[in-house]
Amino acid sequence: LPIVGVEDGRFQKGKAAKTVLVAVLFKNLHIEDVKLTSITVDGLDATAKLKEMLTEWSFEVILLAGISFAGFNIIDPILIHEKFQKPVIVVTRKKPDNNAVRKALKKHFNDWKMRFEVFEKTGLPYKKITFTSKSAIYFKAFGASDQWTFNLVRALSFLGIVPEPLRVARLIARGLS
Amino acid sequence: LPIVGVEDGRFQKGKAAKTVLVAVLFKNLHIEDVKLTSITVDGLDATAKLKEMLTEWSFEVILLAGISFAGFNIIDPILIHEKFQKPVIVVTRKKPDNNAVRKALKKHFNDWKMRFEVFEKTGLPYKKITFTSKSAIYFKAFGASDQWTFNLVRALSFLGIVPEPLRVARLIARGLS
Repeated sequence: LPIVGVEDGRFQKGKAAKTVLVAVLFKNLHIEDVKLTSITVDGLDATAKLKEMLTEWSFEVILLAGISFAGFNIIDPILIHEKFQKPVIVVTRKKPDNNAVRKALKKHFNDWKMRFEVFEKTGLPYKKITFTSKSAIYFKAFGASDQWTFNLVRALSFLGIVPEPLRVARLIARGLS
Repeated sequence: LPIVGVEDGRFQKGKAAKTVLVAVLFKNLHIEDVKLTSITVDGLDATAKLKEMLTEWSFEVILLAGISFAGFNIIDPILIHEKFQKPVIVVTRKKPDNNAVRKALKKHFNDWKMRFEVFEKTGLPYKKITFTSKSAIYFKAFGASDQWTFNLVRALSFLGIVPEPLRVARLIARGLS
């Protein structure tokens, strides 16, 4: 099952205008290819940039490490699912909290409503996968059932609590930034 | 066995002044970490940059995808071996040809003797590993026996003819440049 993992790089708040967005293509649990683009910190280009990055690959599932990248540059999982007609799974290590998101957006963005809409329409609650009493991840699937997604995410998290394509995308993105 | 793979990125001749140098740390055949730096095209900084990159990691073997990176920016495998006291293995897909190297260096570099010295002291011939009648790789080990190295390189080349840490380092480096 060819699976894509998408993660962003670090950046210094107020200092960097851009950071990296990394996509890793996994096949049979090995890296098959890597792509990189740059996205604007707190910008609005992440969804379009991701669509562009993925056009040349064949894959069956996309894993996103959250909804906001490079600050509050939002990737809309529903638009990505509609574009590629493949399941899109948002996976996060922190429990999603839309109230906190709304507050932060309101404080910093004039266009906060537009950004918040994506959080709202992709909806809570997320499903939880508990690994130990202290470690869990949360996921939300678009275009696949919860049970199927639960099994997939669990099977991919064989080296820790993060599914392997996201773990590797993160290592690469952090190695670069 | 923690193993490092080192590969460079692409660059446009005459256009780019820099390209990336990627180091990937493998443990139990999975990526453990990734580091990136930039090196000067045809510069003299690759050996020092690699030393710097590797100081924070623990590893037992270093695989280098050749001796010259970013054009003719040379990584001296003997200096790397001396610094870390671990086997350094140079792996190439093309049969090394020091006469061609000498010619190219003489034509383009005033300091060609200094650069060529590394090719000369690291010596030919390389050992060959034949996979099929049409595919083979060449290696040269510093700090390990040919037989040990042959077995290691073969064991690491389970997804093709290139040892896995170098295959992945290459995918990352090419994805970035």
